[in-house]
Amino acid sequence: MSPGALLAQRARDIEPFHVMVLLARAKALEAAGRDIVHLEIGEPDFATPQPVCDAGAKALARGAVFYTAALGLPQLRAAIAAFYQTRYGVTVDPARVVVTTGSSGALLLAIAALVNAGDQVLMADPGYPANRHFVRLLEGEAVGIPVGPDSHYQLTPELVEHHWGSRTKAVLVATPSNPTGTLIAHAQLQAMAAFTKARGGALIVDEIYHGLVYDGDTHTAANAGDNVFVINSFSKYFNMTGWRLGWMIAPEAYVPQLDKLAQNIFLSPPTVSQLAALAAFEPETLAICERRREAFRSRRDYLVPALRELGFGIPQMPQGAFYVYADCSRLTDDSYAFALDVLERAGVAITPGVDFGAHLAREHVRFAYTRPVARLQEGVNRLANYLG
Amino acid sequence: MSPGALLAQRARDIEPFHVMVLLARAKALEAAGRDIVHLEIGEPDFATPQPVCDAGAKALARGAVFYTAALGLPQLRAAIAAFYQTRYGVTVDPARVVVTTGSSGALLLAIAALVNAGDQVLMADPGYPANRHFVRLLEGEAVGIPVGPDSHYQLTPELVEHHWGSRTKAVLVATPSNPTGTLIAHAQLQAMAAFTKARGGALIVDEIYHGLVYDGDTHTAANAGDNVFVINSFSKYFNMTGWRLGWMIAPEAYVPQLDKLAQNIFLSPPTVSQLAALAAFEPETLAICERRREAFRSRRDYLVPALRELGFGIPQMPQGAFYVYADCSRLTDDSYAFALDVLERAGVAITPGVDFGAHLAREHVRFAYTRPVARLQEGVNRLANYLG
Repeated sequence: MSPGALLAQRARDIEPFHVMVLLARAKALEAAGRDIVHLEIGEPDFATPQPVCDAGAKALARGAVFYTAALGLPQLRAAIAAFYQTRYGVTVDPARVVVTTGSSGALLLAIAALVNAGDQVLMADPGYPANRHFVRLLEGEAVGIPVGPDSHYQLTPELVEHHWGSRTKAVLVATPSNPTGTLIAHAQLQAMAAFTKARGGALIVDEIYHGLVYDGDTHTAANAGDNVFVINSFSKYFNMTGWRLGWMIAPEAYVPQLDKLAQNIFLSPPTVSQLAALAAFEPETLAICERRREAFRSRRDYLVPALRELGFGIPQMPQGAFYVYADCSRLTDDSYAFALDVLERAGVAITPGVDFGAHLAREHVRFAYTRPVARLQEGVNRLANYLG
Repeated sequence: MSPGALLAQRARDIEPFHVMVLLARAKALEAAGRDIVHLEIGEPDFATPQPVCDAGAKALARGAVFYTAALGLPQLRAAIAAFYQTRYGVTVDPARVVVTTGSSGALLLAIAALVNAGDQVLMADPGYPANRHFVRLLEGEAVGIPVGPDSHYQLTPELVEHHWGSRTKAVLVATPSNPTGTLIAHAQLQAMAAFTKARGGALIVDEIYHGLVYDGDTHTAANAGDNVFVINSFSKYFNMTGWRLGWMIAPEAYVPQLDKLAQNIFLSPPTVSQLAALAAFEPETLAICERRREAFRSRRDYLVPALRELGFGIPQMPQGAFYVYADCSRLTDDSYAFALDVLERAGVAITPGVDFGAHLAREHVRFAYTRPVARLQEGVNRLANYLG
C-alpha cells in the first residue's frame, strides 16, 4: 500500500492554512535567535479575563467534570440569551441557544443540519477558509463569490440573488469579516434573510467578531427570520480561544435536530469551559473586554494609516475584528512569495491572501493587529526598511 | 416555510439516542420526588482524579489559555506515546499521536480522512450508535453486521471477509465493546488488519474502554499495520468525560492530512484539558484509576449473576467496559416498552437495545454498572419485585 493511499477525496481537496508554513519558518527563525514580529495570528494576545479563569478554577475545585447536556448547561444557555437582551435589546429564548465546541462546532452543526451532498453554499471570496472546507467536509459545494471594496468586501442581496441557483441551499456571511474586518449593514442582512427564505434556503451569519467593532452600532441577525442561524464564539471578544467554546442561535424548529446531531458528533461541549464562561457576562469581565476593545481600536487607528503610507492599498477603514486586508499589488505581483520574503528578510510574519480564497489572492495580504502598538510600530519600521 | 423545512437528509437519517427519552422521563420522576436507580448512564460515577484537577487549576492560575497546535501539545503527545511503552510495551512515535476533542473528534477525523461519499464502513450490530452516525454524517454508508454470542458479539476476520464488497473502505471495531463489554483477541485484530490492508482498506480500532478490562491481558492495535487507526479517550479509564479529550494513533503517512483536517474542523483541542491530562499518566493518578478498575470489577461480578438470576440472558461474562448487554426475551417481547415500564413502575433506568442497532434490538437491554454496588443491589431488588 503506498503511503496515504487510503485518503478520501475530501482530504485531498481541503487545503491547509498556508500560513502554517510561514509559522513553522517563523518558529525556526526564532529558535535560531531572530526576533519575529507576529502580524499573522488570528488570536487575541490578551489572556483570558481573570474572572473567567477564577470561575474555571472554582469549578475544578468542586471536581465534578462530567458531561453536560449536548445543547450545553441550561444556566449558560440562559446567560447567553440574557446577553442578547442587554447587548442588543433583542429577546432570544434560551431554548434557541445551542452551546458548541468553539464556533467551529457551531459551523459544523449548522452545515450538517442544512446542506445535502451536492448542495451549494454561497460565501464571500475572500473569506475565512474553514467555511468552505466545512462545506467540502460534508460533501456540499462552497461557491466563492468575488467581492471587493465596492461592496465592502461583503456579499449583498444583489450578489446573492445573482448567484443563487437550483442547487443553492444556503448563504454564509461573516460580519465583521475575517480577513477584511468589514461589516454588513443590518438592512442588507434582513434583505438576504428575506431573499433566502423566499427561495427556500438558509442564511448562516457568523458574528464571532461581534463586540470587536469600532465604528457605529452593531445589530445581531438572531431575530432576522426562521431560516437564519447565527454563529458566535467566546474566543475573540472574550479572549477565550483555548477554551473551545462557542454558540449558535438557531430557529426554534431546528433545535431538536441540532440536539440530536450534537449528541452524536460532540456528546457535549467542554464542561470546565462552560462553567468558566458563566463569568464572561459579569460586569467585571465585560469591563475588561471593553477596555481591550479600545486597545484594538488604537492599534487599528495606528496601523491602517501606517500601512497606507508604505504603499499598501486599504480603500476602506475596516470597522471591526482585528484584521487589515491590504492590497500589495503596488509592492509585489505574488503576495505569497512576498510574505515569505518579508518574513525572511524583515522578520515580520503576515498572512498571504491565498489563505482566504482565489479572488485577487496574489494581490493581497492580511495583517492581524493582535500585538501591542509598540510591536506594530516595530513591524512597520521593519517593513519600511525592507521596502525602502 | 414549514418548520424544519431546511433540514438536510442526514439530519433526518441520524437517530437520537433513544435513551434520552428515558432520561428526560427519569428527571421528571425525580423532580416529582421519586428515587431512580440509574443503570443507563455510559459515564463513570467517579469524579476526575484529583491530580488531574490540580494540574488543570494550576494551568488556569497561569492564565494563558490560548490555542495549541491542531495535533495537540507536543508534551502531551509525547506523554501519550510513552504510555504505550509502559502500558503495552509497544513503541509509538509521538509524531503519530493526534490529540482530539474527545474520542468523538478522533472518530470524525478518521472517517473524514478515509471515507468517500458512498463508501461502506463495516461495523458490528449491536455497537455504539454514534459510529454509524459519523459515517452517515460524512455521506458514507455504515453496514451493521449482526453479531451474537458465537463471536463474542464482535466482528471476526471471517465476517469481515464475507461482508467485504466493492464499495467497502473500512472496518470499525471496538474492543472492549459498548454495549457488550466483550473483547477481540489480538490475533483476530491482526488478521483483520492484514485482510483490510490486502483489500486496500482501513481498520479503525476503538480502544476507548482500554484500561477497564477485568480478565486477561490487553494488547493495543497501535502497531498492527500502516492501515490501522487506533482511537482512545481520557473519558472512561481516566474519568475525564467532561474535559472532552481523546486521541488517535495514526499511521505516520496520514498525520499531515489529519493535521490539516483538524486545523479546519477543530483549530485545536481544549487547552486546559490538555494541560490537565499531562497529570493523567502520573503514578498517583494511575493508582487511583487502578483502584477504580477494581471497583468496576466488583460491580460486574455482583451484577451479572444477579441479572441472570432474574431471567436475563447473559451467555458470556463481559470482560471489559462497564456494560452488560442482556437478552430480555424471556421477560418481554419489546425491550423499549420494557425499559419505559421498568422506569415507570420500578424506578430503574436502563437503555433499550434499539440504541445500539437493529439486530435483535427488541430482545436486549443494556445495564451500565456506573453506580456503587449498593445501588446496583437496590436496582436488582426493584427489578425482582417488578418481575416477581
